[in-house]
Amino acid sequence: MNPPGNTSSDSSQALPKPSSAEMAKIVFLPSGHRGEFPVGSSVLSAARNLGVDIDSVCGGRAVCGRCQVTLCEGEFSKHGIASKLTHLSAYGETEKKYSQIKGMNADRRLSCQAIILGDVVVDVPPDSQIHRQMVRKGADEIRDLQIDPVVQLFYLELPKPSMSDQTCDLSRVIERLTAEWGLPNLDADFRFLQTLSAALRAGETYAGDWKITVAVRLKKTLIAVWPGFKEDVYGLAVDVGTTTVAGHLCKLGSGEVVASGGMMNPQIRFGEDLMSRISYLQQNEGQAPVLTNSVRKALADLVAQVCQEALISSSDIVEMTLVGNPTMHHLVLGIDPTQLGMEPFPLVVDSGVSVLARDLDLQLNPGASVYLLPCIAGHVGGDTAGVILSQGPHTSDEMTLVIDVGTNAELVLGSKNRLIACSSPTGPAFEGAQISSGQRAAPGAIERVRIDPQTLVPRIKVIGCELWSDDPNFATEVASIGVTGICGSGIIEVVAELFLSGVIDETGRMLAKGHVIHNHPHLLPKGRNVEYVLYRTADRVIKVIPSDIRAIQLAKAACYSGAKLLMDEMGVDHVDKVLLAGAFGSYIDVKYAMILGMIPDCELSRVKSVGNAAGTGARIALLSAATRKEIQSVVRRVEKVETAIAPKFQDYFVSAMNLPNAVDPFPNLERVVQLPKTTVCV
Amino acid sequence: MNPPGNTSSDSSQALPKPSSAEMAKIVFLPSGHRGEFPVGSSVLSAARNLGVDIDSVCGGRAVCGRCQVTLCEGEFSKHGIASKLTHLSAYGETEKKYSQIKGMNADRRLSCQAIILGDVVVDVPPDSQIHRQMVRKGADEIRDLQIDPVVQLFYLELPKPSMSDQTCDLSRVIERLTAEWGLPNLDADFRFLQTLSAALRAGETYAGDWKITVAVRLKKTLIAVWPGFKEDVYGLAVDVGTTTVAGHLCKLGSGEVVASGGMMNPQIRFGEDLMSRISYLQQNEGQAPVLTNSVRKALADLVAQVCQEALISSSDIVEMTLVGNPTMHHLVLGIDPTQLGMEPFPLVVDSGVSVLARDLDLQLNPGASVYLLPCIAGHVGGDTAGVILSQGPHTSDEMTLVIDVGTNAELVLGSKNRLIACSSPTGPAFEGAQISSGQRAAPGAIERVRIDPQTLVPRIKVIGCELWSDDPNFATEVASIGVTGICGSGIIEVVAELFLSGVIDETGRMLAKGHVIHNHPHLLPKGRNVEYVLYRTADRVIKVIPSDIRAIQLAKAACYSGAKLLMDEMGVDHVDKVLLAGAFGSYIDVKYAMILGMIPDCELSRVKSVGNAAGTGARIALLSAATRKEIQSVVRRVEKVETAIAPKFQDYFVSAMNLPNAVDPFPNLERVVQLPKTTVCV
Repeated sequence: MNPPGNTSSDSSQALPKPSSAEMAKIVFLPSGHRGEFPVGSSVLSAARNLGVDIDSVCGGRAVCGRCQVTLCEGEFSKHGIASKLTHLSAYGETEKKYSQIKGMNADRRLSCQAIILGDVVVDVPPDSQIHRQMVRKGADEIRDLQIDPVVQLFYLELPKPSMSDQTCDLSRVIERLTAEWGLPNLDADFRFLQTLSAALRAGETYAGDWKITVAVRLKKTLIAVWPGFKEDVYGLAVDVGTTTVAGHLCKLGSGEVVASGGMMNPQIRFGEDLMSRISYLQQNEGQAPVLTNSVRKALADLVAQVCQEALISSSDIVEMTLVGNPTMHHLVLGIDPTQLGMEPFPLVVDSGVSVLARDLDLQLNPGASVYLLPCIAGHVGGDTAGVILSQGPHTSDEMTLVIDVGTNAELVLGSKNRLIACSSPTGPAFEGAQISSGQRAAPGAIERVRIDPQTLVPRIKVIGCELWSDDPNFATEVASIGVTGICGSGIIEVVAELFLSGVIDETGRMLAKGHVIHNHPHLLPKGRNVEYVLYRTADRVIKVIPSDIRAIQLAKAACYSGAKLLMDEMGVDHVDKVLLAGAFGSYIDVKYAMILGMIPDCELSRVKSVGNAAGTGARIALLSAATRKEIQSVVRRVEKVETAIAPKFQDYFVSAMNLPNAVDPFPNLERVVQLPKTTVCV
Repeated sequence: MNPPGNTSSDSSQALPKPSSAEMAKIVFLPSGHRGEFPVGSSVLSAARNLGVDIDSVCGGRAVCGRCQVTLCEGEFSKHGIASKLTHLSAYGETEKKYSQIKGMNADRRLSCQAIILGDVVVDVPPDSQIHRQMVRKGADEIRDLQIDPVVQLFYLELPKPSMSDQTCDLSRVIERLTAEWGLPNLDADFRFLQTLSAALRAGETYAGDWKITVAVRLKKTLIAVWPGFKEDVYGLAVDVGTTTVAGHLCKLGSGEVVASGGMMNPQIRFGEDLMSRISYLQQNEGQAPVLTNSVRKALADLVAQVCQEALISSSDIVEMTLVGNPTMHHLVLGIDPTQLGMEPFPLVVDSGVSVLARDLDLQLNPGASVYLLPCIAGHVGGDTAGVILSQGPHTSDEMTLVIDVGTNAELVLGSKNRLIACSSPTGPAFEGAQISSGQRAAPGAIERVRIDPQTLVPRIKVIGCELWSDDPNFATEVASIGVTGICGSGIIEVVAELFLSGVIDETGRMLAKGHVIHNHPHLLPKGRNVEYVLYRTADRVIKVIPSDIRAIQLAKAACYSGAKLLMDEMGVDHVDKVLLAGAFGSYIDVKYAMILGMIPDCELSRVKSVGNAAGTGARIALLSAATRKEIQSVVRRVEKVETAIAPKFQDYFVSAMNLPNAVDPFPNLERVVQLPKTTVCV
């Protein structure tokens, strides 16, 4: 497939006319592809011919600038080539114009415009490769990923119809795409047909005039069209949790996250956890559509939020991916999830599902689709599929435990040989709900806590402020955002620190220590109990009360006993690696998770906090078509373990209420942390 | 693929246990398929094994009754078989129960229940064949057709999920369909997923309890589900004309038309003809959605109309087909058709298009699709495709001229070697519009007219009444419906009869005859003109006025000159066959069409009125998936001739205004009709 447009390259300069037999060698770096081509060929056409991975949206019309290359000067004896600047046509008017408008480094050439005049070695920089690698950034735990989104853009310049060529608009587009890009058997979404004519005929200016950019989904379906050259389109990856809804808006071409947003799941008013919501549905027949509308409204708000942040139109979002537990998955689709609350908990559908965004009442591009990652079983949903996709336990030799903590904890244990999974009812405490001063992870939420074991005075850090509260500038810095509550990672840390400093004992009981230190500013007697004051604002006291500690104990016991059950099923008594996922707020400090006894003992360096891994899975599925097939095939191999009917689960659960817990010793943890041997009573 | 359920056949009778090697011969009539099977096999399984065309929706569960056969008793020496009643298992409880509930002829057997005990010859009656032939009925010009609708029903009995089998509902359905019916790679419409669970779990009665009927589209997509056994689903075939909208509701399994409906196209308020409506859009930017909503509303009303007539729920309609000219085609789809009004008249899309009914705001079954037949070119649309599909000029050796008369006439000329087509602007006169007393073909409309050439007194016949107006009982019979106006076939006949009786001359001028016969009750002086009174009711005079005659002359001249242009292009001076299509009301009397000079001279026996052939094409595409591929391929071969830019067209048009016309002689017509040599002046 040769791109057209070679003939449109600059001919302003007087070139020596090569004889038809004159050939030149070209080598592409870094791939090493090499070949001989007639002098006069464009670099892009040579690259295409050799199968070099080089991007181009405009098909060689010097519009998109995606095909930039650099000439490598010098003797390349290995290839028998002397590569010289003069072996490419001079920088011409078209490239100058492109550079003036869009900007291009001085050493770069548009490979569609640069003509081979002699032997050359040409470097294809990473940003010019179609299948460019996603680069890890900071704490972003996205795995190495070849960007290959399901929706791709193509820029087309089409001949106008005439009385001698009345070919319909759609055929004109399809014929060109087939000829120029080798896409066979294309069809078109109904909404594409509605907008095609206007885009083709958008005036006589450059922006229109039979020059369009089309979006093609899965190399198959035309879904959207814009007049002129369209630089970027976007995808939205969403994690719909029981308690929170969060999403990342990504540029589909590069994978770059351009905006993020989140909110509480408005379904909370129908029940804090999944079982409460399903009970609500059982008791209120015909109410499933109300819950569906509620969560879809949240998705619509999320779309508005990220579009505002990124300053784009929602019609620039051409694809969305969604992970969620089975109940959320079903409710988003408008499927009554009542059966998920009753043995044997069968799903209505478990495979990955693509639906049109308009069928979910979402205002994205009219041709946009929503892909919901596959579910594994009742209560182990697309969120777990997302976690698997992003953490890759199925590709590892090591026995890996992945725990995704939300309102339920979903646990996956195994390696490339076998994967098993279960779901365990943690409740929403780790997400800051059902905690007296709890809140969703958002600016102002306390995310880090340290308690001085001597004075019992806390230091805190809040989301949105870099300083700890004992920094003299903290009050000033934090003033604009305020200190508003405690999010998931904060509540984990404060409970663990209270345990380490002896304020609570291994049963979670708040000790009478407060009574002894009379008038301690952070220990507040309350009837027969004590409350721990974490922070005072002008109008509010942010504190930890006994029921908060109880909620965290229940939650962490659910995590631990789920892990234990899976280890029994797998027949192992230790794991090589623990990955702790969840939308706690910031990346949870794994040491505190171990101190609480959330997770089985493991060498601390092999325990990692991986953030919102389910959401990352949604982003991966957004950016790489191949991973959708991968996860669909992996989830079919995952074996489900039922916590609800395993007698041992209840035993583990009760014992795991203790801190760290009364099921197992923690030799690895004890090597790094001094656990209170006996509880202090000052 | 063997159907299950053989083991569920009656075992109430004591059968001699056959040895495993005991075989019996079976011959199926009328196909002649034959084979040997182990004694104990069911007749249905033998039929399936031999590839005999035998229907079954329930997969051998004695639920659907579609697999009925008859045993042929006697010696079949050709096959070496003595076929006896006792060579099939006796009529058992299951068949008795089916017969009691649903009724079954005494000589019939359910082939899924009848067990082969010895050599038999079995007849498969036409109503038990899957690919049963559509039978021509009366004037219904549907061609021989194998019923094979795009949507098929399958009855399934599924195992309930359990803790040891948590397979999701969808996989349960798909696995069964694949195993039992050999349907690979099934997927499901989003709306199917929403209703599946409720259908599977519809109580413990027979109607539910994991017994469902599913509808599968194109052997690929699950689109609908009902609890229990669903006997029938329906399809709606619609012809959306510029002036009228008409539809037939058909049982998909048999093709039977169970209801018909129609109405004026409410877009008429935006212009009587297509060009007026396109002009309206050119002058009122952004109004295309208003026209779209207008025609979609008419479709919605049509759905309600036919459902009420057939007493079915609109959710029982699982597929719709639609034919329309390109402007209607585009407007129904929500595509702005403005470009169709400007040279070079390019379509936005010309291929056959399937869209979800819900995307067109149509309340059919939530998973239903609408298939729009392909268009041929600007102004030659899916209606012409429907005409071609139903009349089959592309399959004929003869030079066939097909004229579809609507607000435009679309003409197709050719044979299996070559087809050419054009569109000619007749205006809506043939549909009863722009005629002073005109109306749509509906009960009360005058559809037949005879004028006594001596007395000039007319006789009429109206739709909905079998009697002519000179019958003594006419007044009584017609009282309930009334005489309300003149429809297309009536206006053609009255103008032709006025010409034959000399009231108008060959230029269409109403003669002074009325002045001579003073006070003639049917000739009404009006200034310098005369009007012809066709019928008087208590409150209204139904008459023909000079502008009516002028409208018919323009319309018929458009037909004739289009035909002439095509004949020039084809290089022929006569045609073998003329087919006259259109929603005139009743089947037009072709003699009158020839007297008017609508069509070129042809042997009268080779001129046929074929009714609403476009609508018939829509019905064919509804009932046979294969014909969709056929028409898609045929339309790509049709060459378009542009009347708008052909200089000869204008010349022909002007000359063809005369009666019959001044372009050609009519030797064939003159052999059967005495044309006025000179106009009479009494």
